[in-house]
Amino acid sequence: MSHHLLTVDSLNRESVDHLLRVAARMEPIAQRRQVTRVLEGAVLGNLFFEASTRTRVSFHAAFCRLGGSVCDTTGFTFSSMAKGESLYDTSRVMSGYCDAIVMRHPDQGSVAEFAAATNVPVINGGDGPGEHPSQALLDLYTIDKEFQRLGKSLTNAHILLTGDLKYGRTVHSLIKLLSLYDPLRITLVSPPGLEMPSKLIDLVASRGHRIEQRDSLASDFADLDVVYTTRIQKERFTDEMNESFQGLSDDFMVNRDFLDHRCSQSTIVMHPLPRDSRPGANDLNVDLNGDPRLAIFRQTDNGIPMRMAIFATLLKVDELIEQDTRPVRWYVPSQIGTLDR
Amino acid sequence: MSHHLLTVDSLNRESVDHLLRVAARMEPIAQRRQVTRVLEGAVLGNLFFEASTRTRVSFHAAFCRLGGSVCDTTGFTFSSMAKGESLYDTSRVMSGYCDAIVMRHPDQGSVAEFAAATNVPVINGGDGPGEHPSQALLDLYTIDKEFQRLGKSLTNAHILLTGDLKYGRTVHSLIKLLSLYDPLRITLVSPPGLEMPSKLIDLVASRGHRIEQRDSLASDFADLDVVYTTRIQKERFTDEMNESFQGLSDDFMVNRDFLDHRCSQSTIVMHPLPRDSRPGANDLNVDLNGDPRLAIFRQTDNGIPMRMAIFATLLKVDELIEQDTRPVRWYVPSQIGTLDR
Amino acid sequence: MSHHLLTVDSLNRESVDHLLRVAARMEPIAQRRQVTRVLEGAVLGNLFFEASTRTRVSFHAAFCRLGGSVCDTTGFTFSSMAKGESLYDTSRVMSGYCDAIVMRHPDQGSVAEFAAATNVPVINGGDGPGEHPSQALLDLYTIDKEFQRLGKSLTNAHILLTGDLKYGRTVHSLIKLLSLYDPLRITLVSPPGLEMPSKLIDLVASRGHRIEQRDSLASDFADLDVVYTTRIQKERFTDEMNESFQGLSDDFMVNRDFLDHRCSQSTIVMHPLPRDSRPGANDLNVDLNGDPRLAIFRQTDNGIPMRMAIFATLLKVDELIEQDTRPVRWYVPSQIGTLDR
Repeated sequence: MSHHLLTVDSLNRESVDHLLRVAARMEPIAQRRQVTRVLEGAVLGNLFFEASTRTRVSFHAAFCRLGGSVCDTTGFTFSSMAKGESLYDTSRVMSGYCDAIVMRHPDQGSVAEFAAATNVPVINGGDGPGEHPSQALLDLYTIDKEFQRLGKSLTNAHILLTGDLKYGRTVHSLIKLLSLYDPLRITLVSPPGLEMPSKLIDLVASRGHRIEQRDSLASDFADLDVVYTTRIQKERFTDEMNESFQGLSDDFMVNRDFLDHRCSQSTIVMHPLPRDSRPGANDLNVDLNGDPRLAIFRQTDNGIPMRMAIFATLLKVDELIEQDTRPVRWYVPSQIGTLDR
Repeated sequence: MSHHLLTVDSLNRESVDHLLRVAARMEPIAQRRQVTRVLEGAVLGNLFFEASTRTRVSFHAAFCRLGGSVCDTTGFTFSSMAKGESLYDTSRVMSGYCDAIVMRHPDQGSVAEFAAATNVPVINGGDGPGEHPSQALLDLYTIDKEFQRLGKSLTNAHILLTGDLKYGRTVHSLIKLLSLYDPLRITLVSPPGLEMPSKLIDLVASRGHRIEQRDSLASDFADLDVVYTTRIQKERFTDEMNESFQGLSDDFMVNRDFLDHRCSQSTIVMHPLPRDSRPGANDLNVDLNGDPRLAIFRQTDNGIPMRMAIFATLLKVDELIEQDTRPVRWYVPSQIGTLDR
Repeated sequence: MSHHLLTVDSLNRESVDHLLRVAARMEPIAQRRQVTRVLEGAVLGNLFFEASTRTRVSFHAAFCRLGGSVCDTTGFTFSSMAKGESLYDTSRVMSGYCDAIVMRHPDQGSVAEFAAATNVPVINGGDGPGEHPSQALLDLYTIDKEFQRLGKSLTNAHILLTGDLKYGRTVHSLIKLLSLYDPLRITLVSPPGLEMPSKLIDLVASRGHRIEQRDSLASDFADLDVVYTTRIQKERFTDEMNESFQGLSDDFMVNRDFLDHRCSQSTIVMHPLPRDSRPGANDLNVDLNGDPRLAIFRQTDNGIPMRMAIFATLLKVDELIEQDTRPVRWYVPSQIGTLDR
């Protein structure tokens, strides 16, 4: 694994396996049964040039759970950058203050430019249409963990990716990670005009996976292990797409009916969140709330151990964790495994 | 005490007494003579959908003083919610990251809706015209502590609530808590149109307290123990009220003259803050600054031990504190008890 | 040293020497070779009424590296102050929550007004055209450290201050601190209309230093030890100044050509940052990036030990540090001394 985490392209099977293993080791801490102080004294710069509460809090909490301190900065314009400071200067300055940096920025490539100017580990927390590698890693970790729970294996698993497969950066990164694993069956379902880029389809096929495109969810998915759904953002549509989508939208709706009638009792449902719960939003249906197959909140929970694993690996404390844990003393509500899970 | 702290209505005499006792136990830490690490590893999500610097910093500092870490989020629109994320989803996601959540939101009922979706303890930090229970608790704690200092007892104490008694949520919550205690004399003084809702007056009377309404401060308050004043927000006034108030405003002014001539040397003055110190603001007069009867800064100081008590109780470390304290090593300026106090 | 740090005028040779010594003692921690917990339990209120990411993060990180917790507040209007709360009330309230306060505010004198109402140590993080004393202290510390590295001494050192010497508050504060030291040669170069105020020139001269004004950089600086450059903000210009500056701007440009042809191999370049890297910005040229004489990032790095020294001194733990350090356990990238440094 390189010094930074900027793109999933820099990861290979070995480095991904390592992160999955370290994340699993983080579970007792992430689930608040143990505490550690291994990153005591370390400071994370959590630089969000673009607002993303969920991602920011997840990185923040993960770093704290390792014993470190976090300095958040949020805002579309940072004061210095508004005065003409280059990314190079900002990077050099911040790396004198912080021991690791998470950066989210609306411009593709900006995080890599920032990282090039520093030796301090930089994690890409999303650079516009570019990458968001920790999301793909926590998605893969979720599939792995759910499969273990269900007694399944990744070999020959059948995974459906649906929704906006053209612009959804999370599915692009996830499919690249999945392609590093045992032969899979991957099915793609998206409205016309929002198909997965052919470059990615070719990559996956070239690595020996069965990859197939269908044009609606109205078919049999009885052997489906995972449905990973992303929101179809109508803002992306051309007039023509908009018109044709009216008659189609039901064909792309992941809801209880689809799960009950087309899939199986062990099909899990994932989503990168946030989910648009407003009526007519063309997003994952809220009628699945409370269904144990809905894995979306277990998925965000998994962001903590995976981001802890990323920090621990980049800061080289991944081997020290076991030696530095204590039982937690405060009350831990039985969040995990209760309510609708 | 329930799992969350959403409203004072969920509190009874026993749970309030418990919080007062735990808050008193927190004093050595709140006054920076001791430090504890009892919440080490715990993460507070401090979610302010509406800005309130004072309340946010108070909860933040209280959690830190117990050894925990805090992740703040401030802003009228959270990024995810702007994308249509429901309070249900936000709640499930945040409770995977945090061990306790303080939430302030402009909409009444929103904090309860958020809390219903999670097992993690949620504290209502103010939901618009709704509740702000930790304020009422620190107010009660202040009265209790001041009475101890002055050798007084709550039995038959005479407490004046004045200002905007119709819209001021703090006086509504405080009067409910007070009504759980020994028979009190409560006097209400407000301009016409801003009277305490009769439902609350009836509740207090039904619990055996003497409650009385007067129409100005221009009468004798020689036996008064506490004057609790809130700002009269002229923004609330109808034209008619505005006109009639012109001639009346002096009748509702709490200032040194009122204290010196109508009250006694042991009458204390409280206010939920912030206080509008601009000329003509119809708020607690600044001519009382430096007078030892002005308890408003001791009152905000008390927010720390009370909020520590709330966290410690909800996270079930209230019995562990004494076992995990060390003397503070840094210099503590003699803030408490000096300057104008 | 007084209770607060509001202005460099309150510092004398002894207190400055003390801070330089303590900052040097902080280096093992600032360079992430050791960690300390000496401020455990302490809470810093980092109050930025005006955005300044760099300064805020620097104070934040410095306090964390001493083992304390930080509560940030950023924004042009604080919610309470927007409701008419006085600086006096804000100060009293915040000092009940925090053990030290850093405050930045656009209005000159506001930080002193805030500090007058509290016993808790207050550090001026910049009050508009007023003071920013920690910047001057880190600048002096940088000169001292660079001189040690180069085997030079402050006695008879030749220091050039250039750029906007009229409005640049950093050069005003720095020149006051420098004037406390051994006889120096100070040269001032600024465009007409942006000269150093004569009051300051007289002060420096009265303390026995050689101080000289030149009207361009186009002369010999072979014996120069330090060039301290600040951006010329054309926004400050009158029409007349603007016109005349067109033909002059090259005369005030600090770049590689100036360093290579007018100065020496041991001349170091400083700048308070941020630097405007946009073309035509009249700021320190980016063609010096990678040149070891460019000390600007070492200079910002030095903000950490100096701000640690300020906190440690005000909170009286400056003598305790050595007794409470442990080796760092995480990986420290070889930031310091690598890349272009």
